Amino acid sequence: MRTALVIGTGLIGTSAALALASRGVTVHLADHDPAQAGTAASLGAGTDRAPEVPVDLVLVAVPPARVADTLAEAMDKGLGRGYLDVASVKGGPLGELRARSADLSRYLGTHPMSGREKSGPLAATAELFEGRPWVLTPTPETDTEVLNLALELVSLCRAVPVVMDAEAHDRAVALVSHMPHLMSSLVAARLEHAEDTAVRLCGQGIRDVTRIAASDPRMWIDILSANAGPVADLLAELAEDLGETVAALRSLQSADEDKRTGGAAGVEAVLRRGNAGQVRVPGKHGAAPRVYESVAVFIDDQPGQLARIFADAGRAGVNIEDVRIEHATGQQAGLVQILVEPKAVPVLTRALTEQGWVLRG
Amino acid sequence: MRTALVIGTGLIGTSAALALASRGVTVHLADHDPAQAGTAASLGAGTDRAPEVPVDLVLVAVPPARVADTLAEAMDKGLGRGYLDVASVKGGPLGELRARSADLSRYLGTHPMSGREKSGPLAATAELFEGRPWVLTPTPETDTEVLNLALELVSLCRAVPVVMDAEAHDRAVALVSHMPHLMSSLVAARLEHAEDTAVRLCGQGIRDVTRIAASDPRMWIDILSANAGPVADLLAELAEDLGETVAALRSLQSADEDKRTGGAAGVEAVLRRGNAGQVRVPGKHGAAPRVYESVAVFIDDQPGQLARIFADAGRAGVNIEDVRIEHATGQQAGLVQILVEPKAVPVLTRALTEQGWVLRG
Repeated sequence: MRTALVIGTGLIGTSAALALASRGVTVHLADHDPAQAGTAASLGAGTDRAPEVPVDLVLVAVPPARVADTLAEAMDKGLGRGYLDVASVKGGPLGELRARSADLSRYLGTHPMSGREKSGPLAATAELFEGRPWVLTPTPETDTEVLNLALELVSLCRAVPVVMDAEAHDRAVALVSHMPHLMSSLVAARLEHAEDTAVRLCGQGIRDVTRIAASDPRMWIDILSANAGPVADLLAELAEDLGETVAALRSLQSADEDKRTGGAAGVEAVLRRGNAGQVRVPGKHGAAPRVYESVAVFIDDQPGQLARIFADAGRAGVNIEDVRIEHATGQQAGLVQILVEPKAVPVLTRALTEQGWVLRG
Repeated sequence: MRTALVIGTGLIGTSAALALASRGVTVHLADHDPAQAGTAASLGAGTDRAPEVPVDLVLVAVPPARVADTLAEAMDKGLGRGYLDVASVKGGPLGELRARSADLSRYLGTHPMSGREKSGPLAATAELFEGRPWVLTPTPETDTEVLNLALELVSLCRAVPVVMDAEAHDRAVALVSHMPHLMSSLVAARLEHAEDTAVRLCGQGIRDVTRIAASDPRMWIDILSANAGPVADLLAELAEDLGETVAALRSLQSADEDKRTGGAAGVEAVLRRGNAGQVRVPGKHGAAPRVYESVAVFIDDQPGQLARIFADAGRAGVNIEDVRIEHATGQQAGLVQILVEPKAVPVLTRALTEQGWVLRG
């Protein structure tokens, strides 16, 4: 790949352009807002002058609702040898192109599983895709040359290619991203009018469950609109489970002992199915979750405390896998949970104790 | 408080006994399993010999279903001047004691908002309650002397007392703990039979939402059984919102433009209510969440990398508020997000860049 045209210079388009430009590809930038393409160009993502056509790769990075129109227009003009998009939903654009009888041999729908809490070209970075899955959804019509072009793009962006069918992709992101997002919003919504004393009792559990409910509604309304069918199907399935859970809890309050036993079995089934699903969530490194053990250290909230702990762990040769900092309600003191491989626990415990740290239990 | 009898030497009972014993209180330990009381005694939590009665404080730390019986029996025998329990649900035990015409002037129901992923006396620690809220639920009958005894216990355990009505407590923990727990299980349950390729696309969002679904079902069935009513009420309210969300998503697929507009408004309302609820979740220190900014640093997965980052931050005088480690799918490399006060961002960025760290964007 020697030349590329990136249409749409938001976070994803500009980040991909930065990665391609930094690896020697001549990148041209276009946007319906020329000032935004100019901003991307000023960041070193390429030039906002029009390219000599055809370029090797046309990369369409516009909002989901505009993807099919933009691709069809670019294909009509013969701007490139291969056409990719990066929309977070894949069935819709493919269906629209098919309905327009576009040349599907030159097109491949893709979706980099990267994102940030910020958007726009100023949030872009060439490293955005490093180590993240980048889904490719080839059809039987897709030319091998175009598939290889996509694999080259993914490689230049240091991402990990994952090949899926477009419909399977849409169901997958509904499951692992869109449905959990709405559930997080629905749980958080119940706190909107809660009493202050109740909210004071929040702990790390609800903090984790509701974290993604803080996201920008404007971006999410676009994503959910483009994948409304699969998300609605999943939420309807979950609503059925939820109805059964409510019924099981009501049975637990019954005067009839058989009903109470049935209710307890129903609630336990939900908890056990939750266990079974949770262990499937990949941990670090995309592998099956490894089991880490936690060593908990009391700190006060001064600069340098964490540095000293990590330095002491490093000197003991212990590799820290994850860290969780819990702070005490109404106090400045806190607890640092350090997750390490089980075999490192005695080494770390000894090293930290020797250095005078107070460990929990 | 000079003498205490702790009945039930699991995680909470033994931890409280350890805290009291370490601050000079003579603690007696009892358990329906004498071997478990012996274990707690061997950890320094007190003696498993019977006390001279009455002791100053009888602390009942048995499973929720056994609380009222255990309290009534202790009161009948006149074992103490004041009687407290630490069950995670408060309305049930109080109602049962009232039904038995127990002397409620000597009783106060409490709930320390502490816990760990482990249980039993071996997981106990005198520091378990440090800085955490400890709910006290006095009734009009409660003697001031008993309330002061509870406040002394909370103080000796270095916890933060929060006074609430028993029913308000049960509704509050249903809202901030029990309902989110079941929702996390229900989301995780949908992954149980998901395809491997779908599960590979999981990111930090679903990882956070489903984390608490990994908890022990046996403990949770006890908690949920004891608070089934308020939890069922909250889940039923959430089910209504969920039904409306499914309907809004279905409208988004309609051929009728008005319906689509209505559907988009419905989905947006859920997302915005989620925003409004999420900001109420207290952050660190139990205060309203402060806004931190993130500085993202690339690392490889070697011992000492985090130590060096934290040391470099500490030398620059920057106080790290929170840390999140993201690891790349299929790779050993990762990204550390360091959260700091906004004013510390330029200082930290400069310090880390000078030390040769690669920052994201």
